[in-house]
Amino acid sequence: MAKNVGILAVDIYFPPTCIQQEALEAHDGASKGKYTIGLGQDCMAFCTEVEDVISMSLTAVTSLLEKYGIDPKQIGRLEVGSETVIDKSKSIKTFLMQIFEKCGNTDIEGVDSTNACYGGTAALFNCVNWVESSSWDGRYGLVVCTDSAVYAEGPARPTGGAAAIAILIGPDAPISFESKFRGSHMAHAYDFYKPNLASEYPVVDGKLSQTCYLMALDSCYKQLCKKYEKLEGKQFSLSDADYVVFHSPYNKLVQKSFARLLYNDFLRNASSVDEVAKEKLGPFSALSGDESYQSRDLEKVTQQLAKPLYDAKVQPTTLIPKQVGNMYTASLYAAFASLLHNKHTTLAGQRVIMFSYGSGLSATMFSLKLNEGQHPFSLSNIASVMDVGKKLESRHEFPPEKFVETMKLMEHRYGAKDFVTSKDCSLLSPGTYYLTEVDSMYRRFYAKKACEKGSLSNGH
Amino acid sequence: MAKNVGILAVDIYFPPTCIQQEALEAHDGASKGKYTIGLGQDCMAFCTEVEDVISMSLTAVTSLLEKYGIDPKQIGRLEVGSETVIDKSKSIKTFLMQIFEKCGNTDIEGVDSTNACYGGTAALFNCVNWVESSSWDGRYGLVVCTDSAVYAEGPARPTGGAAAIAILIGPDAPISFESKFRGSHMAHAYDFYKPNLASEYPVVDGKLSQTCYLMALDSCYKQLCKKYEKLEGKQFSLSDADYVVFHSPYNKLVQKSFARLLYNDFLRNASSVDEVAKEKLGPFSALSGDESYQSRDLEKVTQQLAKPLYDAKVQPTTLIPKQVGNMYTASLYAAFASLLHNKHTTLAGQRVIMFSYGSGLSATMFSLKLNEGQHPFSLSNIASVMDVGKKLESRHEFPPEKFVETMKLMEHRYGAKDFVTSKDCSLLSPGTYYLTEVDSMYRRFYAKKACEKGSLSNGH
Repeated sequence: MAKNVGILAVDIYFPPTCIQQEALEAHDGASKGKYTIGLGQDCMAFCTEVEDVISMSLTAVTSLLEKYGIDPKQIGRLEVGSETVIDKSKSIKTFLMQIFEKCGNTDIEGVDSTNACYGGTAALFNCVNWVESSSWDGRYGLVVCTDSAVYAEGPARPTGGAAAIAILIGPDAPISFESKFRGSHMAHAYDFYKPNLASEYPVVDGKLSQTCYLMALDSCYKQLCKKYEKLEGKQFSLSDADYVVFHSPYNKLVQKSFARLLYNDFLRNASSVDEVAKEKLGPFSALSGDESYQSRDLEKVTQQLAKPLYDAKVQPTTLIPKQVGNMYTASLYAAFASLLHNKHTTLAGQRVIMFSYGSGLSATMFSLKLNEGQHPFSLSNIASVMDVGKKLESRHEFPPEKFVETMKLMEHRYGAKDFVTSKDCSLLSPGTYYLTEVDSMYRRFYAKKACEKGSLSNGH
Repeated sequence: MAKNVGILAVDIYFPPTCIQQEALEAHDGASKGKYTIGLGQDCMAFCTEVEDVISMSLTAVTSLLEKYGIDPKQIGRLEVGSETVIDKSKSIKTFLMQIFEKCGNTDIEGVDSTNACYGGTAALFNCVNWVESSSWDGRYGLVVCTDSAVYAEGPARPTGGAAAIAILIGPDAPISFESKFRGSHMAHAYDFYKPNLASEYPVVDGKLSQTCYLMALDSCYKQLCKKYEKLEGKQFSLSDADYVVFHSPYNKLVQKSFARLLYNDFLRNASSVDEVAKEKLGPFSALSGDESYQSRDLEKVTQQLAKPLYDAKVQPTTLIPKQVGNMYTASLYAAFASLLHNKHTTLAGQRVIMFSYGSGLSATMFSLKLNEGQHPFSLSNIASVMDVGKKLESRHEFPPEKFVETMKLMEHRYGAKDFVTSKDCSLLSPGTYYLTEVDSMYRRFYAKKACEKGSLSNGH
């Protein structure tokens, strides 16, 4: 069996168009700090009428192949995780096949995985399992997480975002899976869902969704600890994780979640937390599960106690989610990309615990082990290729009015046919794919903005 | 690594409500034989307002667990393949979690896989790979294919159907995968897709879809032959397959497809076909690919030549697809279930070649090897549990007017909220789940028709 299977390479794309949360806050007449401190968000990316989940994923995949020097023929599996439905039957993966057909490679397994923000994690596990299975043919797997998160006007609107991430999978990876340390929690819930088929917007029960997220987190953490303890013969606690990366609908929930893990450690084994924590958490030790999810006092105390650990183990993962917003399936991996960006020089030998959550609901906590790897599949090269700092800096801020206008146009365009876009790609970086037309049969056409060298290619 | 991973158990459910193709033909004013001979279809099942892909899959999973005596806690992975979208974010898998949550089992990986009729095959491969991977925890995998195929009034309407199949996956299986003998063909095509999000009906280019299917078939067969020949050091031809099972939108396409494989054998190695075939196919040996897909003469000649082989290797797989119609993701596995039903006493030691096709497009040809297995996971028990003959016999034929009326109601109900159904389950078998209500928040509620023993359970 292939060994140390995991992530060899990553690239991330997010639209260059964004809005500052502070500006949106003021425009919406929300109280000062509601989006920036209340939600913990700084900025939000969004697709304009020339971008969508297909164009973003075409961009991310093409960029990854080019920048790591991967021949498209070396890809044996390609899977997409997304909850942004443009077609209910034809997968996003088949759009990406355009890149590979050109090279004569059509023998590529995998389709799209769907369950809210969890689809990317399902695709990732499937790809890793494929490399470890008897059906592996020695080629690379490629996972794409692509989503555009948009909400109707109202309190959920600032929790949008958009991005696509491409992740290359294979053996002897700098980021490998500790597959035995994994806990899942899956259940039937209506916390966030998309039953209104004609609308791009979800139906959201914000309060329920937060409780579902925390319940799933508790359950997954318990499972992971149990499995670790069975295999390793010793207790697992936060001190065994160098970093913890969360699916990040908004940063405030990440803060709460990490604090919740500290509370879990205390409940499972009080000796794993320090004396101060033991004393301060004592009064909460007899709460029922339900009570604990509702208790504001517990939330406050645990967040205070967890603050130093949060700064060390979580804060380095929050950059892109805070700057780009909720990227649904890409959110967890954008948080992980933030960690690689911020800490790549010191990650070798470290363990990263990942928590993936998709409403409806599906959740898994899993463990990654890092080593420096070998060029081009090294932590430093991944950070260099992603070039997160430059991508964030070179964005274009829209004023709120223009953002709202864009959302209105996008509502109109969702599910529509027989239109051409402005084809205005002036804000896009060279090499970015963009939507040019949806014809009378709903067929979608894309073009690629010429690369800096002046080469021109067409994504049809 | 787990050995001989594959299918341990199967159960199939299709609605008891159906319409004879002959009656529909007359009602539609189509020429006599257009549906029955032209399409090769006998009968078509459809969901009435109390059934949908969720209720059918709840029924199939519950039935499989009960009939094979599987404790829900023994399931470690559950995946669904479907192209019937009721919610764009919340997976069908999460609805099925209701069965497992009751038993305290929420640690079950897997979500929904999507690409037209191919999603079930993707789910199946994912599940098999999981059992072979380092993340397998020793429990069973469960794959569910569930779809309701409905078409707008017009020529495609008789190609509908509906069913759910549940497939249990594990090691030492009576139906195991020859994972190395596999060829895929994936490409970007608009042959059949569902871009009109508010409508349940697809956009179909029938002629293109048939060509895409046959092109994908050729490509997959070539890949499979190439891999077989590389590994086994000898040529592969139809004589190496005891049965060939096809995704079956309508039977006529299956006839054409099998004939096409004979033509492939002739082109690849004329010595693998007999003298008569060699002589009759000679005139077609210089056709270009495109010409060969358009040639009616070639189609006729190959079908005549292939007829005896078709009767032996394909006809036993056609029962359910001809009687129930196109079941999308479940179609290929319903064809395979037909084979188990018809031939279970003589299948041990035989090789079955499967061809899965999903528009858009994704296709894989793969190989299964059969042995009798051990009760309850034996070919004879699978045939006995599925009880296909009884299920087909006990159906209720609707007259065309009532069928059309049902389709109209279903159009109205698709994507709707805030209604209760008739709750009329008089036509359903005991143990069948049915839809009772969709509330004002689009939340769906199901009940289970009391089992014969009088037990009552509720699917909420």
